[in-house]
Amino acid sequence: MIGMETDVLAENRRLAAINLHLLRSKKIRSVDVMGSIGSGKTALIVRMAMVLSSKGKRVAAIAGDVTGDDDYSIFRQAGISALNLNTGKECHLDAHLVEHALEDLKLDDLDVLFIENVGNLVCPADFPLGTDKRLVVISPTEGDDMVNKHPMIFLEADQAVLNKKDLLPVLDIDLGRLQRDYSKIRKGATLQLTSAKTGEGIEELLLSLDLI
Amino acid sequence: MIGMETDVLAENRRLAAINLHLLRSKKIRSVDVMGSIGSGKTALIVRMAMVLSSKGKRVAAIAGDVTGDDDYSIFRQAGISALNLNTGKECHLDAHLVEHALEDLKLDDLDVLFIENVGNLVCPADFPLGTDKRLVVISPTEGDDMVNKHPMIFLEADQAVLNKKDLLPVLDIDLGRLQRDYSKIRKGATLQLTSAKTGEGIEELLLSLDLI
Repeated sequence: MIGMETDVLAENRRLAAINLHLLRSKKIRSVDVMGSIGSGKTALIVRMAMVLSSKGKRVAAIAGDVTGDDDYSIFRQAGISALNLNTGKECHLDAHLVEHALEDLKLDDLDVLFIENVGNLVCPADFPLGTDKRLVVISPTEGDDMVNKHPMIFLEADQAVLNKKDLLPVLDIDLGRLQRDYSKIRKGATLQLTSAKTGEGIEELLLSLDLI
Repeated sequence: MIGMETDVLAENRRLAAINLHLLRSKKIRSVDVMGSIGSGKTALIVRMAMVLSSKGKRVAAIAGDVTGDDDYSIFRQAGISALNLNTGKECHLDAHLVEHALEDLKLDDLDVLFIENVGNLVCPADFPLGTDKRLVVISPTEGDDMVNKHPMIFLEADQAVLNKKDLLPVLDIDLGRLQRDYSKIRKGATLQLTSAKTGEGIEELLLSLDLI
């Protein structure tokens, strides 16, 4: 079983490298957006796309979900080029699924690609998709012990963002603990704070992802 | 691969049946508590345990997590007999892990056992643990499209509860849509509403789980 798991992960990494090479050859910046259900991944991508569009960047989003097209519909309603990707039962996207999605996108007309992973804090960690950056989105309602509970995904991601900062006043959580746990896992790193609802912190997040 | 997955699931169901038989032979009622991170599973179990204890029931909890012992510590601080179960990398508990946990519990001194599954809405669905009931806990911050996005777990669970009802006034969500999606998946079923923070709805939830 260990040999088999290793093969799957190695094959995924091989395909991820191919995806990254293709995207870079087209000068497209790409971000894998991970996080639990309800952390606000879709809303955050919409906000980032709005800011990027206002700066003349052409943005597309791949909506990854087990089933359904709720996130895809939200992207389309917001005027974002989007593609829906259902995993069936899998709790994460993988590089192979993304490879096929890239065949369906007009890569020559694109500057930035967001890939919204399946809402899950465990599974996506092991499966890079071949993006420049991996972002993990958390929310204050997930509790101040959640970084400590899921070190793998924070270790794998290039940046972590605490979204829904507008909810902080009504919740009883220790923001300092989240920050301390995060900077223990990724030396010197700081949590970005955003509110996809109010738009706060979006420019700073785009800067940290080298998108503006 | 399909053959292999089927074998794993069949073996899990076999062990689940053994667990259920053991628990029933000891007259212990048991609940598998599933839900995403931050839905409030731990806090809800603590509240239910408090009410059950006040009625003279002896309660224990198994805290399932990928890593760490945060939930276990919360149970212990609340005075609940508890056992910590780390999955390592797996995004769900399984009947084999629970079988071993049962060996470490004093089953003769127990009336009710809660098993808190790993915080995840996808993976636990396929792996019953051998409990009388399976409960799925959701929170209004997860959005009103989340039942539609994760039909499998709502289909597998005996009861769904929307926790954190105290947050409803500050969130912009369509409670009617959640309810409609849920009763579409499980004919005639209604979402229970609780607040582990204020204690609202706990007695009703215990009733629906046949625990009081």
